[in-house]
Amino acid sequence: MTGSHAIRFTVLAKDLSTHGRAGILETPHGIVETPTYMPVGTQGTVKALTPEQVRDTGTRMILANTYHLALRPGEDVVQQAGGLHKFMGWEGPILTDSGGFQVLSLAPMRKIDDTGAVFRSHIDGSLMSLTPERAVQIQNALGPDILMVLDHCPPHTATPEEVRDAAERTLRWASRCRDAHGRDDQALFAILQGGGHDDLRRWMAEELSALDFPGYAIGGVSVGEDRSEILRVLGFTAPLLPEGKPRYLMGVGSALDLVEGIAAGVDLFDCVLPTRNARNAFLFTREGPVRIRNKAYERDFGPLDGNCRCYTCKKFSRAYLRHLYGRGEILASTLGSIHNIQHFQDLVGDIRRSILEGRFAAYRESFLETLKTFETPGEE
Amino acid sequence: MTGSHAIRFTVLAKDLSTHGRAGILETPHGIVETPTYMPVGTQGTVKALTPEQVRDTGTRMILANTYHLALRPGEDVVQQAGGLHKFMGWEGPILTDSGGFQVLSLAPMRKIDDTGAVFRSHIDGSLMSLTPERAVQIQNALGPDILMVLDHCPPHTATPEEVRDAAERTLRWASRCRDAHGRDDQALFAILQGGGHDDLRRWMAEELSALDFPGYAIGGVSVGEDRSEILRVLGFTAPLLPEGKPRYLMGVGSALDLVEGIAAGVDLFDCVLPTRNARNAFLFTREGPVRIRNKAYERDFGPLDGNCRCYTCKKFSRAYLRHLYGRGEILASTLGSIHNIQHFQDLVGDIRRSILEGRFAAYRESFLETLKTFETPGEE
Repeated sequence: MTGSHAIRFTVLAKDLSTHGRAGILETPHGIVETPTYMPVGTQGTVKALTPEQVRDTGTRMILANTYHLALRPGEDVVQQAGGLHKFMGWEGPILTDSGGFQVLSLAPMRKIDDTGAVFRSHIDGSLMSLTPERAVQIQNALGPDILMVLDHCPPHTATPEEVRDAAERTLRWASRCRDAHGRDDQALFAILQGGGHDDLRRWMAEELSALDFPGYAIGGVSVGEDRSEILRVLGFTAPLLPEGKPRYLMGVGSALDLVEGIAAGVDLFDCVLPTRNARNAFLFTREGPVRIRNKAYERDFGPLDGNCRCYTCKKFSRAYLRHLYGRGEILASTLGSIHNIQHFQDLVGDIRRSILEGRFAAYRESFLETLKTFETPGEE
Repeated sequence: MTGSHAIRFTVLAKDLSTHGRAGILETPHGIVETPTYMPVGTQGTVKALTPEQVRDTGTRMILANTYHLALRPGEDVVQQAGGLHKFMGWEGPILTDSGGFQVLSLAPMRKIDDTGAVFRSHIDGSLMSLTPERAVQIQNALGPDILMVLDHCPPHTATPEEVRDAAERTLRWASRCRDAHGRDDQALFAILQGGGHDDLRRWMAEELSALDFPGYAIGGVSVGEDRSEILRVLGFTAPLLPEGKPRYLMGVGSALDLVEGIAAGVDLFDCVLPTRNARNAFLFTREGPVRIRNKAYERDFGPLDGNCRCYTCKKFSRAYLRHLYGRGEILASTLGSIHNIQHFQDLVGDIRRSILEGRFAAYRESFLETLKTFETPGEE
């Protein structure tokens, strides 16, 4: 099964000059206004934040990592706890990835064939395997609202033949995941591979659409290619996916990626950028990035972002944040993460309103102009 | 001045069989029921917690460290921010120490004479000095509700002559601090030294009482001597201090120390134990300490302490806490600190009620019996 009745997706408004749309995603654990940004809770916690702090940023859905949770504490522990929502105290919707991406990026000595992936745990080196059936089984045990098929995501350096093989394998695996999926209260999303090859992307979109999944993700993006290629593939691929289903861009998420992804027709995003940058004292504001350790903020008693309504900006000064980061205080990561996530939620919220009010084109133009005035917002 | 009008202390009830008492301490930033435990916010943050999280544990007053804040960000930055309350977003009462203890324990190459202490910063090695006047000046700038005189706290290994010299110096410095104190909205507390020498303790108590400070601290305890000596000195010294003034036991605070300190007549306590232990996965419960990393808790889906009303115990399981600590997640320190502080606040709250209801002796006896059944609750 695909769990297509577990969720319901409604497009409320479409932008006329782009593929952007505003919608509503109903899940077993609540309603999500789309487009939305999902903070990443790798180990069953959005780092440095309580569930209430996450929710207070406007976050409605989060992502958790199957690979990490399956290794530790083990999906059986999570299942026995009553599922991931209960285990981690997050009452809203959860999406889990399949673990395939981590197998490829973290695990040493992997071997992939049609059966699945054989790899060594990055924790203790023990030999493990991840098949499409096993990926679904783990996610059935974890209990998210949305689970992902196992896919084969080749690196940017793969040959055209390797990219084609991976795409074809991903398609076969999608069918096997569908057959293995055993819970009708979880929606199974398919993943589009195909690298930078338009013909492959189009072919996969057609094949996967025919399988009628309740949602579709764009994979194989941001795996080492440059920014312009990301945006080209995104702009070409997203519109190929079924109009009435939610579209999810996996693991990509600078502010620019969000705006351009939404313009391409994407509804769901996840990225570690806001929380990871927050832990590295790199904070986003409407006037550009702030490296808060900078001496310039020593006596800056104003808020981090005067237009931000987050807890951190309402309560604390740049001088205090600089002091906390300078001392290596845990509270720095908490306050920075709250702000950076709120910044992203406000961004997608602003975009959503601009789509509903028919002024997304103007918003996007103004956003891109403003972005040019910033220093390069790098990942740290 | 001593700032004696800045606070008002009222003893509401006294235990008949010990020196224990329950009271009310009114400060410029709110009312504190005594006895009370003050969590330590060394760098202007109770580690890992927002001010709201601290308050939700029942905490009403916190301690901050003058030495650390004077070095970084500097008391002038804090003053310019509007004072420590505003800088750190804590609206309740704050007590600052004088910095003397840190000079003695952290700074290399110190030299102490009647003028004050000359030492090298433990940060950059620069030569600094701390005089009684300077200690008060820094605390006047930081802006706590209660500030402490500079004292000379000799190590446990000091000779009787050294202990006497330090006590006499502390007395002279107390007068100089009193003369230097420039804010009538801050109460200046004196500190009793004298090591394990009863005659010195008695003499200091008499001399300091004559100076009529608004509060008195017992210093020179827990500087390396064993537990029974701590309790002996405490039991002897606390009752020597003026009945109508709050008594503060500096930096001592296992659960046993709290119970015995209160029995000796102490009203205020501070200690890093609850928060430091929390960061080291050592958690307190009514059934004894829990080393939460233990494999035994892997599938323990009950709360850390079933009788605790803290956020952590109401919302999360031992299994989840173990998972967070095992992964080194920041949230572990937050949840553990919330619980350990609540545990201490509940302890002093229970004791306070038992004093008000005339049953402290029974409470204490039962507490000491229960403690025997625990593993040794060590500091980690």
